[in-house]
Amino acid sequence: MAVYTDVDDEELIAFLATYDLGSLLSCKGIAEGVENSNFFLHTSRGNFILTLYEKRVAEQDVPFFLQLMEHLAARGLNCPQPVRNSAGQALGRLAGRPAAIVTFLDGYSVHHPEAAHCARLGEALAKLHLAGADFPASRVNALSVGGWRPLFAPFAARADEVAPALGETVAAELDRLEREWPRGLPRGVIHADLFPDNVFFIGEEISGLIDFYFACTDALAYDLAICLNAWCFDAQGGYDAAKGRALLGSYRRLRPLETAEIDQFPLLARGAALRFLLTRFVDWLDVPEGALVRPKDPLEYLARLRFHQAVSRAADYGLDA
Amino acid sequence: MAVYTDVDDEELIAFLATYDLGSLLSCKGIAEGVENSNFFLHTSRGNFILTLYEKRVAEQDVPFFLQLMEHLAARGLNCPQPVRNSAGQALGRLAGRPAAIVTFLDGYSVHHPEAAHCARLGEALAKLHLAGADFPASRVNALSVGGWRPLFAPFAARADEVAPALGETVAAELDRLEREWPRGLPRGVIHADLFPDNVFFIGEEISGLIDFYFACTDALAYDLAICLNAWCFDAQGGYDAAKGRALLGSYRRLRPLETAEIDQFPLLARGAALRFLLTRFVDWLDVPEGALVRPKDPLEYLARLRFHQAVSRAADYGLDA
Repeated sequence: MAVYTDVDDEELIAFLATYDLGSLLSCKGIAEGVENSNFFLHTSRGNFILTLYEKRVAEQDVPFFLQLMEHLAARGLNCPQPVRNSAGQALGRLAGRPAAIVTFLDGYSVHHPEAAHCARLGEALAKLHLAGADFPASRVNALSVGGWRPLFAPFAARADEVAPALGETVAAELDRLEREWPRGLPRGVIHADLFPDNVFFIGEEISGLIDFYFACTDALAYDLAICLNAWCFDAQGGYDAAKGRALLGSYRRLRPLETAEIDQFPLLARGAALRFLLTRFVDWLDVPEGALVRPKDPLEYLARLRFHQAVSRAADYGLDA
Repeated sequence: MAVYTDVDDEELIAFLATYDLGSLLSCKGIAEGVENSNFFLHTSRGNFILTLYEKRVAEQDVPFFLQLMEHLAARGLNCPQPVRNSAGQALGRLAGRPAAIVTFLDGYSVHHPEAAHCARLGEALAKLHLAGADFPASRVNALSVGGWRPLFAPFAARADEVAPALGETVAAELDRLEREWPRGLPRGVIHADLFPDNVFFIGEEISGLIDFYFACTDALAYDLAICLNAWCFDAQGGYDAAKGRALLGSYRRLRPLETAEIDQFPLLARGAALRFLLTRFVDWLDVPEGALVRPKDPLEYLARLRFHQAVSRAADYGLDA
């Protein structure tokens, strides 16, 4: 939860005057999102979200994210749609930071996803990948295999503060994944962070996807492996096969998987677990001053990693060739 | 800023089902308020605020606050109005805490109030006092003169960590105020925390007052002294006479001050400064674990207290008999 930047009312009114959104009625900081400062914005034209991009999001990447949301929304995917100002720009500046206004998306996160939610997620992820197929821009995934060792290195000596033998486990996993990481799988735009927080439901149906600020160009099946990690395990690291089958089955009905994607899925799942283990581990040791962020437990992802290490083939997830 | 409690979507849906508010569309934690957890709630019937009362608010006091808001709203004061559930109750339970839904109030806090804002504030405070005159319930002000010494005592030994000679200054001030604190001034319901955060404007006009969770029964002029402290000083502790005159003048046009209130005003202003100095001082030294609250600087109120100590009569604030 986070609001890193206080927005002055006079500055906000001046900023809003550059849009065709009517007058300011209300603006409240939202205790969600850890990368940016988000505000619920009510104007005489309706409800919106105002986002200030904080230092964890590189300013030069913001146009990619905004263009992607516009592209996906234009293809019928429910996601926040950037509002352009009177000069036709989706990106402005407010309180010294890059800032954008997007449409407000109804829906709420499901705290205890069931298999039925995972099935809806699989469809939504496949639709996202299909809608993104003709997106012209690309963005390197800085948090893919090449980024993991540099992320870990500065904190490696402190790994065992977090869990016994964590340093050794990560080092061995890095060696293995760097050697065997699959290349040549179908690629495209991936969300890369489609956790339950970022998927809104109303009742049984998905009302939209949010938070595209890790989106990048990478193997589509890797995005599916991230979702499997995020949605299909219990807090103790136990795999829920019914949820996994629901996710994977509904995904491949809309976007059939190639044989290579199925064969490599266990490795992608290990990589996805390691990626979140590493970023949570670093956040755990390196809480930025004044961030008001409660770091997430990295050990949940250590348990998932251990599960994946014991898997020998995709069928163990219920993913048959 | 605070959300202390996470609300599960299933629990929230069950809670909402006890109201006639339609179905859940969105619920987002708001990074405002330090006493309670607040959520922006969007249902098929509109926008609301959901409040979970955390341990800093005594559960037995919550009905007082809710009844007061109903009373004031019924008399035309713009403030959040509690929504009663199907059983006619304004107070329920959610996530193990007392919980209430109130109407959403448009408006935004002014970061840099000018004299014109202070004039509107004076009118709104007088209207609040007049509208509360026939409110039947009462609540002791635990943060009035009798509460200050017990609040300070456990931390007195650490006072000089915060500012040189702070312990001595507070001890002398406590002695003086306990001896001379005015009794017998006109009393009634006071807001007791009407800082700029709790006063919403749209343009030049006040759209409403919020956060009645310090409201209590006390000297009305003490509420005015709190506002003077909160609105009419700069960050360095300098008194802004134009703002003070605007506040005091507009208040007394709607609710004329008695001679005793004017005579005692400098002492009330000292007390108000000491009250916020003390609570900020305690919060500074005693940040609750996991609260995600950035404590406010107590020294702003030390500077105000020193200003008031140098004042000899109400006319020094622009408050003439």
